Amino acid sequence: MRIGIIGTGLIGASVGMALKKHGHVVFGWDLNQENSSTAKRRFAIDESLDFEDVCQTDVVFVCVPPASLINTSEAVYQHKLPETVVTDCGSVKSALTVWAKDKTDFVPGHPMAGHEKSGPLFASDWMFRNAKWILTPSLSTSKDAVTKIEELVKEMQAIPVHLAPDLHDQHVALLSHLPHILAGLLLQMGSDLSAPQVSGGSWKDLTRVGGVDPGLWTQILIENRVQVDSVLRDFQARLESVRQSVSSSDSNALSTWLTEVAKTKNGS
Amino acid sequence: MRIGIIGTGLIGASVGMALKKHGHVVFGWDLNQENSSTAKRRFAIDESLDFEDVCQTDVVFVCVPPASLINTSEAVYQHKLPETVVTDCGSVKSALTVWAKDKTDFVPGHPMAGHEKSGPLFASDWMFRNAKWILTPSLSTSKDAVTKIEELVKEMQAIPVHLAPDLHDQHVALLSHLPHILAGLLLQMGSDLSAPQVSGGSWKDLTRVGGVDPGLWTQILIENRVQVDSVLRDFQARLESVRQSVSSSDSNALSTWLTEVAKTKNGS
Repeated sequence: MRIGIIGTGLIGASVGMALKKHGHVVFGWDLNQENSSTAKRRFAIDESLDFEDVCQTDVVFVCVPPASLINTSEAVYQHKLPETVVTDCGSVKSALTVWAKDKTDFVPGHPMAGHEKSGPLFASDWMFRNAKWILTPSLSTSKDAVTKIEELVKEMQAIPVHLAPDLHDQHVALLSHLPHILAGLLLQMGSDLSAPQVSGGSWKDLTRVGGVDPGLWTQILIENRVQVDSVLRDFQARLESVRQSVSSSDSNALSTWLTEVAKTKNGS
Repeated sequence: MRIGIIGTGLIGASVGMALKKHGHVVFGWDLNQENSSTAKRRFAIDESLDFEDVCQTDVVFVCVPPASLINTSEAVYQHKLPETVVTDCGSVKSALTVWAKDKTDFVPGHPMAGHEKSGPLFASDWMFRNAKWILTPSLSTSKDAVTKIEELVKEMQAIPVHLAPDLHDQHVALLSHLPHILAGLLLQMGSDLSAPQVSGGSWKDLTRVGGVDPGLWTQILIENRVQVDSVLRDFQARLESVRQSVSSSDSNALSTWLTEVAKTKNGS
């Protein structure tokens, strides 16, 4: 199959690497020429082409930041072939799915994988191995288009999962966006300590995804602001309840809470 | 050397395993006989003895939960030999160090290592490899006693670090206790989702230490309540500031914050 990658950053280049392993021919374009050169040099794409030419392939993956996603997808539709199927890898899905609702050959998607560093230099052909790849097709999306994307997703060793777009955005607000915010805040507070080097495994885990690309993540958080605000408020209320239990030495309340958490962990 | 372990749970049994590798003879006692049997069966201790006998060794490690730490250490002093050096592995150090201030042969300690599961079944001889092992001796603590503990710590492949006890408690409130609270809250919120299985790497990392032993952690959080309350308030204020930036789509504020976090990450 001829695959087009619009945006050969971390995710786009990883898609290219994973699909080239299966014999597909991959063409790439990036607004930033350094990204497409790096992607080519790292064998993530076979060739770097003009935007228009990358659109004239069998399947186009639009892998650009959230704020450019709809505009870029519009542009893909101005140049693509009638039979080209288009998908994306954006972190927020509601607005895009509304935009795509009349496009039978657009399959909105979001791989639940990444890296705390951005760019094609950190791309890998195993990025999506065992990861869930969420698809949010609408009722009008063609079944054939969905099947084609699902097959490519499986070739990348990811697991396709269907979710409604609003449910997707609610899920990622909690499962991804909130953890990234918490990790960032922890990192920043840690930098004020006099001996931060004494930290152990819990700190390492909780802060790994702190320090992600500021430009990209500003867009992600603002694009999903309604859901992020909602999970943040919920989280804040729960955190305040724990704080009150701690500061008042309420061992019953703390023990009850920790027992509930342990049950959740063991039940999962 | 003859080593005594009072409390052969996760940490005590790991100390035993790590020191037995270096040819020390290790004796253990636990209030819960199942713990000492498991520790013996897993070769974490050579023999399970009476409390009094375990105290009559060259070095005693007191590895009991925070709320029992001072009482248990008192009891060790009623039975130990004059030359026995005593240390502990407690997660909170201020009160204990005050208690120990006249005991020249007591070296308060805290290994920055652990596991999200408790008990000797999860112990390992590599638990402390490359971990910092914080010691909070006072001015009256004998240098020889400190050196003896430092040498054992190094045999366990950990790195001894000295901190003042109040500084220790402030550091662990942020570096360990807060992350455990955040992980617990995330886990609990995740259990309300309809499709939590779509989570990726950030969720896995941020929730690993959720679901820890409720009894132990109730004691840890209450023992360190002043410092935990303080870091929680600081964290809450910063979280609210991020929430406001998100909900008001303040991309400048968000981008500035994320840029600062990224600088912190790259500088560390």
